[in-house]
Amino acid sequence: MNHVAAEARSLEGLSINFATVRQFGSFGAIVDACLAHGVTAISPWREHVAAAGVEEAARIVKSNNMRLTGYCRGGFFPAADKAGLEKALDDNRRAIDEAAALGSPCLVLVVGGLPKGSRDMPLARSQVADGLAAILPHARASGMPLAIEPLHPAYAADRACVNMLGQALDLCDALGDGVGVAIDNYHVWWDPDLEAQIARAGRNGQILAHHICDWLVPTQHILTDRGMMGDGIIDLKAIRAMIEKAGFKGPQEVEIFSSQNWEKRPGEEVLKTAIERYLTVC
Amino acid sequence: MNHVAAEARSLEGLSINFATVRQFGSFGAIVDACLAHGVTAISPWREHVAAAGVEEAARIVKSNNMRLTGYCRGGFFPAADKAGLEKALDDNRRAIDEAAALGSPCLVLVVGGLPKGSRDMPLARSQVADGLAAILPHARASGMPLAIEPLHPAYAADRACVNMLGQALDLCDALGDGVGVAIDNYHVWWDPDLEAQIARAGRNGQILAHHICDWLVPTQHILTDRGMMGDGIIDLKAIRAMIEKAGFKGPQEVEIFSSQNWEKRPGEEVLKTAIERYLTVC
Repeated sequence: MNHVAAEARSLEGLSINFATVRQFGSFGAIVDACLAHGVTAISPWREHVAAAGVEEAARIVKSNNMRLTGYCRGGFFPAADKAGLEKALDDNRRAIDEAAALGSPCLVLVVGGLPKGSRDMPLARSQVADGLAAILPHARASGMPLAIEPLHPAYAADRACVNMLGQALDLCDALGDGVGVAIDNYHVWWDPDLEAQIARAGRNGQILAHHICDWLVPTQHILTDRGMMGDGIIDLKAIRAMIEKAGFKGPQEVEIFSSQNWEKRPGEEVLKTAIERYLTVC
Repeated sequence: MNHVAAEARSLEGLSINFATVRQFGSFGAIVDACLAHGVTAISPWREHVAAAGVEEAARIVKSNNMRLTGYCRGGFFPAADKAGLEKALDDNRRAIDEAAALGSPCLVLVVGGLPKGSRDMPLARSQVADGLAAILPHARASGMPLAIEPLHPAYAADRACVNMLGQALDLCDALGDGVGVAIDNYHVWWDPDLEAQIARAGRNGQILAHHICDWLVPTQHILTDRGMMGDGIIDLKAIRAMIEKAGFKGPQEVEIFSSQNWEKRPGEEVLKTAIERYLTVC
């Protein structure tokens, strides 16, 4: 193994998203588990921060020299009425504040799908663009980049109507400074234009996070049957190479929703497996 | 209701894909059920034709003045080795012959996903392009248009690595005469570039079929939980308008895979419901 490859394989390049190891319980317990295995980068969810309190969560991060690779999450802009929209915007502004308090490099946004009762995708998409524009001044004032995460088209109706990396980058270009993308292999691996869009994102410095897991064949559940890296069909090394070539040097963040499998196993087993797979197949 | 709308609502514009009503059993039984309800356009599957014999199936079609809107299906080109590829090509040539014997306006192609054991999407896609080119001379000699059906990205790994309408049209443009697309609402409704790509397909006379069903929220199973029109979130009328504006005047073909629900109900109920929904929400 040459020097570059050896360097790339150190655990410095690995981040654990809290959703992957929620078995450990609290914010502090997850951090302790990560540290015990030499993992120093994390991506917490708001629920963990809410339970610990944002000041205590920030204290844990700082006192343990942890790095965040993102904070999950804001978004869900489309709403059936003005009150719903205002509520969403307020919640996003709070998420920005929390991300800033924690020292996160970005706030990850799952933008939301169709408003309740609607079949109007163009409307949903325009509400997302408007919502992003509405929270952007607060994000800029807070120095908190917004990371739009394009989600797999299987989630277009109910989770995110931004479903292509190119579509997310068009939004970024329209909004200007302070907005980029979180690229999750699970959502983008199938995109015929992936390599070109990753290169485009890199040219504009818009890659803010890189999430990894795997696509299982067959997939048993559309939401909660994501695979451990190596167990599916995503060409993880190829996508990693595209993203590194595009200039993103941050850690790969393991985010696995797996109520069918990994969530039922002990957190230690999940964490050890994620580390081993990161070192061998990613 | 004005004249155009009334005309658009006649059952002339409705086709039933055999997969929707397989409860009726044989090729002849499905045709009889459709005719009993005034439906004169159908889209059979190879399994029904194989069971009846292609000559008998063609006789049933002709003697009952049925119209086909497609024949399901060819494709599945990617293969792990040369023998597998040759087998796929031979099978596609037979499907072309059957489609011609039945008087189908096109052979619907589900192009196939990754070769077994592979994670190489670019390879799968090049195998699809090569496979299409290999069967095209036979299709042209038979006067049988090939209809590439882009499938939802949820099927990219195991069923079709052609996942966007624009991607399918790029293939059509590269291959030339004799190749077009089957547009299935279920697979394309989420596409941010849908309207432009449908218009593009129309300009080049490349729309060969239009399939309808609905996307349920939540979707319980990634393959077999498709919805009856009106039960989901697809803006059926909007997509129909795009396709008609693009110049396609053929029937809308109801294709529903629903092992969770509709397949468990009597064929009569499914057929009646499909007709009622076609007349009211499509």
